[in-house]
Formats: sequence, structure tokens, C-alpha cells
Amino acid sequence: MNKQPKQLTAGIPDSEFIRGDVPMTKEEIRILSISKLQLTVGDCLLDVGAGTGSVSIEMARLLPESTVYAVEQKAKALDLIRLNALKFETPNIKAIEGKAPEALANLSGVNKIFIGGSGGNLKEIIDWVERNCQTGSRVVINAVTLNTLIECRQVFNEQEFSTPEIIQVSINRIEKLGNAEMFRPQSPIFIISTTRL
Amino acid sequence: MNKQPKQLTAGIPDSEFIRGDVPMTKEEIRILSISKLQLTVGDCLLDVGAGTGSVSIEMARLLPESTVYAVEQKAKALDLIRLNALKFETPNIKAIEGKAPEALANLSGVNKIFIGGSGGNLKEIIDWVERNCQTGSRVVINAVTLNTLIECRQVFNEQEFSTPEIIQVSINRIEKLGNAEMFRPQSPIFIISTTRL
Amino acid sequence: MNKQPKQLTAGIPDSEFIRGDVPMTKEEIRILSISKLQLTVGDCLLDVGAGTGSVSIEMARLLPESTVYAVEQKAKALDLIRLNALKFETPNIKAIEGKAPEALANLSGVNKIFIGGSGGNLKEIIDWVERNCQTGSRVVINAVTLNTLIECRQVFNEQEFSTPEIIQVSINRIEKLGNAEMFRPQSPIFIISTTRL
Amino acid sequence: MNKQPKQLTAGIPDSEFIRGDVPMTKEEIRILSISKLQLTVGDCLLDVGAGTGSVSIEMARLLPESTVYAVEQKAKALDLIRLNALKFETPNIKAIEGKAPEALANLSGVNKIFIGGSGGNLKEIIDWVERNCQTGSRVVINAVTLNTLIECRQVFNEQEFSTPEIIQVSINRIEKLGNAEMFRPQSPIFIISTTRL
Repeated sequence: MNKQPKQLTAGIPDSEFIRGDVPMTKEEIRILSISKLQLTVGDCLLDVGAGTGSVSIEMARLLPESTVYAVEQKAKALDLIRLNALKFETPNIKAIEGKAPEALANLSGVNKIFIGGSGGNLKEIIDWVERNCQTGSRVVINAVTLNTLIECRQVFNEQEFSTPEIIQVSINRIEKLGNAEMFRPQSPIFIISTTRL
Repeated sequence: MNKQPKQLTAGIPDSEFIRGDVPMTKEEIRILSISKLQLTVGDCLLDVGAGTGSVSIEMARLLPESTVYAVEQKAKALDLIRLNALKFETPNIKAIEGKAPEALANLSGVNKIFIGGSGGNLKEIIDWVERNCQTGSRVVINAVTLNTLIECRQVFNEQEFSTPEIIQVSINRIEKLGNAEMFRPQSPIFIISTTRL
Repeated sequence: MNKQPKQLTAGIPDSEFIRGDVPMTKEEIRILSISKLQLTVGDCLLDVGAGTGSVSIEMARLLPESTVYAVEQKAKALDLIRLNALKFETPNIKAIEGKAPEALANLSGVNKIFIGGSGGNLKEIIDWVERNCQTGSRVVINAVTLNTLIECRQVFNEQEFSTPEIIQVSINRIEKLGNAEMFRPQSPIFIISTTRL
Repeated sequence: MNKQPKQLTAGIPDSEFIRGDVPMTKEEIRILSISKLQLTVGDCLLDVGAGTGSVSIEMARLLPESTVYAVEQKAKALDLIRLNALKFETPNIKAIEGKAPEALANLSGVNKIFIGGSGGNLKEIIDWVERNCQTGSRVVINAVTLNTLIECRQVFNEQEFSTPEIIQVSINRIEKLGNAEMFRPQSPIFIISTTRL
């Protein structure tokens, strides 16, 4: 029998996550990135550079019967992932300590890959996807820096991946400060999405 | 038995919809707006100013057992809604010809309301929501113009609705023109979200 | 004989101004706002809510023979205006302590008006412009908040002012953080420009 | 005796230029780019890929005693440059037919270089600047594409040029369509500025 998730769409407010000073994928970027992964029942999910675990948790809630591997090298962030997994009741998250792609050695069957941080190993992680993930697997990358954006253009071998879709997303949040409604800009994020051919 | 949707996340590419010159909610704005509706199993959905039906279709696919009422006053757009409902196999969309709120007279049980276009009747539509929708109902509005944004600030009676969340979303799509990777801006959209108290 | 300014264009880097925690009009917004004032030889300039004096100083350098009245109600900011006027050698800035429009009582001949902050008196300031400034005078307003933007739409009487030009300016500054080139967003600013008819 | 320009700031409205289908640097980008050139009396100006001549004309008006070399390879655009130079009474513009850097062979003394289009020769143009322009010369580039942005990061030899300042500028123009005030986005432009060391 299928367990039906209570919440059918991603979009947990940022303030609900337990956070330290670990960077977090903001609500709207999370929603869009997960959508670009084109989740379906039966997927096996991987979150590289999982940070606070916010993307993992959203995916784990949308797919309660799937496993979400959350790879993270910082001990502090791993603690947050585990705390947030408890808070949001997502036992299907498996936190993995270490650095990708080394930390991915024992994984198999992964077909939806979100990369929020690559620790300088983007090319090696994409090589791992090429070798280990089946045709139709989706890869979605968040680039905060120009460097990562440029690297993304280069790593996707045209024989192995579809031409990436690239969007730049800028969000202003209108927030009250007393009576004043301020436009608060968030850092613009590039979302790069592609399919393993 | 639950019918499980094949696709668990919104995000149909714009190019897959049958379109005329009817304006369409673009992919990323659709994804974010639907997420702000916080869809759950059992919801009853309403799409006001449904245009090509793109938002209705995404919602109908996420909630195949729910009804999506797609209200639209232009005959041409209604045809597109019906064609797209056929193409995307979403028989749970009920297209309603007419103008809101008049056209909503016979609806009951609606608890998730998306307003893509109000035809100048925003206040009257929100009044209808106040009278007809239960506590916890969500309202999400897309504002393309400064006028609509300003009207949104005014229509939500603080006793009846939570303080609206307002974000401005700007998307640049990086598209190849020959070898050149151009930044193509989309019109910025304000997404206003609130809950019936 | 004309004194020729050394620098013919505005654009002093933000970091060159002496600042406390007083808000400052950022470089690019300053450049654009001053351009929208359409400065010419012989202008008489007014900077309302002058803050650190950055806009006044740019104008004073472009028009060394003109007077720039810098109105500011905060003592702390007035000190900064005077310090910056010394640093940038612009004796043609006259700092006026007080709140507009009261503080403008003795001014005459002003024909270029920049409003960086109105202290809630926007309507009264525009009324003052209507009564005291000649045909062809330019008014340029920076709006940081939605409230000010909305107020701007309302205060310009169509018989007395041209339809305002409104632009929203968003600047991302690409800054190195170690080797990473980060996109740092600045708060988006609305620049509203009009002419006294 | 100095000829004093009537207009002390750049910012000619786009609609005042004679245009065909030749791309034009939009008003606000023109204003910012010219500011980043830090114009002073005595400058010798170069506009590479001059298009309709809009940047050349603004510079020629700010510096009526200086020569502005407007290099352009398309005959159609050259005609527009000449027509606009007549319209705006800027005889100090010298239109040069050809492609940079070849077309620059006979120029000397240039110290302010604007590059609106490089025709694929950005590296060669920067090499020409390195060989021909004195210490303190300014180079300002407009990049419309990701490719040009990336190339800009690479061409500036750190021994010869200061670390470039890079900003991304996004402008929404609020325009009336009937009673509706639409947000019209302009293509975002990267402005890259550096100094010859």
C-alpha cells in the first residue's frame, strides 16, 4: 500500500528549519530545483552538499517510500540534517558523512541528483553520475557563483547529457519594517538542469 | 484506492501546452504559485482567469482525485483549456465559462484558489472567498501589473486573511542564439499568498 | 570664467564616502538619478533627505558654480555631509538642518530636486515644488519601499507634472570571496522622474 | 576658450535616436557605462561596435572638444551613426568603417575605450589597448551574453589591468498599457570596467 504524503508540494518556509550558520537553499529555489528533478514514484534521490538538509527533507516528504541520500562533509551540518529529519519525520533520509564523489562509492540505483554544493569536485561528481546513473536520470545544480556556472557549462559531455537548461532566479521578498514595505533581495541563483542520455 | 500521479511535481515546459495568443503563466511562476497553495489530498481547487489552463492542468495532475474549476470568460481561452485538458489527460478539470465572481455562484467546497487574472473584480472575488471558503483556505495571486499589486495590499481584510506574503520573481532564461548564450528576461511577477482565517 | 570640473561624470565609489550607519544612495543609483535630473549649467539644486550627502557631492562636483542645498533632519547625517563636502572639496554644498518642506521656506530658484528620503512628507514636498519651482524643473525620487512607490503614483497632479517615468533598478555586484565570484544583490530601487509643467 | 556642453549628464531617451533594426545600448546602460569610463576634459574616446552611435553621441556631447572614434563594421549602422551625429550636432564623432582591432591601426592617444560589441575579437582588442593605451586608460565592456562575460574574466592580464569591476544591471520599466502599469524587463547587461595599469 502506498503511503500518501500529507503535503503534495514542496515549500516549507525557511524559518521552520533548524539552522545554525550553515547556508540553506531558500524556499523558492528549493521548490524550483525539486521541480526540475521531475520526481516520480520509485525514484532514488541524492542530495550532494546537503547543508541543513532542507532539499532532502522536501524530497523525502514528497516521496516517503524512496530513500534520500544526503551527502555532507561538515559534521555540524550533518547534525542539522539529522535534527531536521527528526523534526519533519522523514526517516527515509540517509545522511552520509564525507565528500562526493568518494562518499558515493556504495550507492546504487540513484536517478535524481541535486547538487547544492560540490566542494570543488563538480567534474568528478558528474563523472560519477555518468558511470553510475541510468538513462533518464536528472541532475539539477544550484550555482551561487560565476565560477560554478562556468564549470557547469563545461562538465556536461554532449554525448552523455542533454543540453542543460539554465535559468537565473532573482527573488525580492517584500517585508514590513514598521509600516514600510521593503524589497529584500535574495542572492540570485542559477539553476542548471539536465538529463543523463 | 488512490490513483497515484505519475508526476509528483509541477513543471510542465511552456512549449508543451497548446497555445494561441492567450497569455500563459510561465513554468517557474506556475511551480511557485502552486507550491504556495500548499496542496494536500482532498483539496478542491479553483483557477480564476485560467487562460490556457496551464495552472489548472498542473494542479489536476498533482491531485487526480480532486476537481479543478477553471473559470475563464474568453471563449478562445476556454477552447484551449479543453484541448490542453485532453492532451494532458486531466478529466478532473471543469471549465466554467464566465466572469468571477458571478461564474462561481454554484461552487462549494473550494479551499485552494489561484487567481491569475481577475478582470478588474479582485475585490469581489476576495469577498466571495471570504463568504464561501473555510478557515485554512489558501489564496495565491499573480500580479503582472503595479495596479494589481496595489489592489492586493488593500483587499485582504486583516480579520479574515493572514498578512499576505509578497514576493517578486524575476527569471532570466539563458538561451542559445547560434553560439551566443543570451540572457532572456521574463516579465517579473509578484506572487501574493494568504490564508483564510 | 567657468570653472571646469575635473570629473565630468558622476560615479564616486561608495567606499570613498565617509559613512556611519546612515543609509547611502549606492553608486549606480546615484549615477542614474543624477542623469534623470538632466543637469545643465546654471541649475539650482536641492537634495531632500541628503543622508551622507553622496548625491549632493556628485552634483556639486558636476556643477561647481551652482549651489546644492542638502536638507537633512538627522544631526549625525549632517555631520557626515559636512565631512564629505570637505573631503571632496565641494564648498558649494549648503547643508540645511531640518525637515522638508518646512526647512525649505527660505529657498528660491531651485529647479532640480532629488528626493532620497521624504520622512513621510512626500505630498507636502511635491506641493512645495508646485508652488516654488518654475516650469521645466525636474524632480527625481528614489523609492526603496512599496509605500513610497505607491505614494509617488498619487502625488503628481497631472496638470502640474508630466507623467512620471518609473524604472526599477536591480544591481548584482560580482565580488570575490576567496576564489569564488559571488553575485551580491543590492536592494532594488525605483527611480521616479518627472518635469514641472 | 572652452565650449561648455548644454547637457552635463548622459541620458538621452532611447526614442530620440534614429534607429533601424540595429541593436542599441539602452539609456540606463549607456549612462552607467559612460560613468564607469570616468570622463575628464582632454580624453580621447573610442567606441568599439558603435551600433547606432548612441554611446558615442552621449560622450561627444559631454566632451565637445574631444574626438570620439566610433568603429563599426556594418554599413547600415555606420549610416545611422552619421545621421545621429547630425541630429545631435556632434561633429566630433569620427565614424570608422571596419572591424577592431584592424580598424584601429591609425589611432593614437585613445584613453577611454567603450566596447559594446567585439565581433568575436575581444582578446585582440584588449591586446591592442595594452600596446597602445597609456597607464590610467579606462576600458568598459557591455556583455549581453554569458560567453562575453566569461571571455572578459580571462582577457585582462593582471599585470596590465586592474581587477575588473563586474556588475549585472537589470532594469524594469513600468509602462502604461491602457490603465495597466506593466513591468517591462530589459535584457540584463553585465558592465565590466577596468583600468590600464
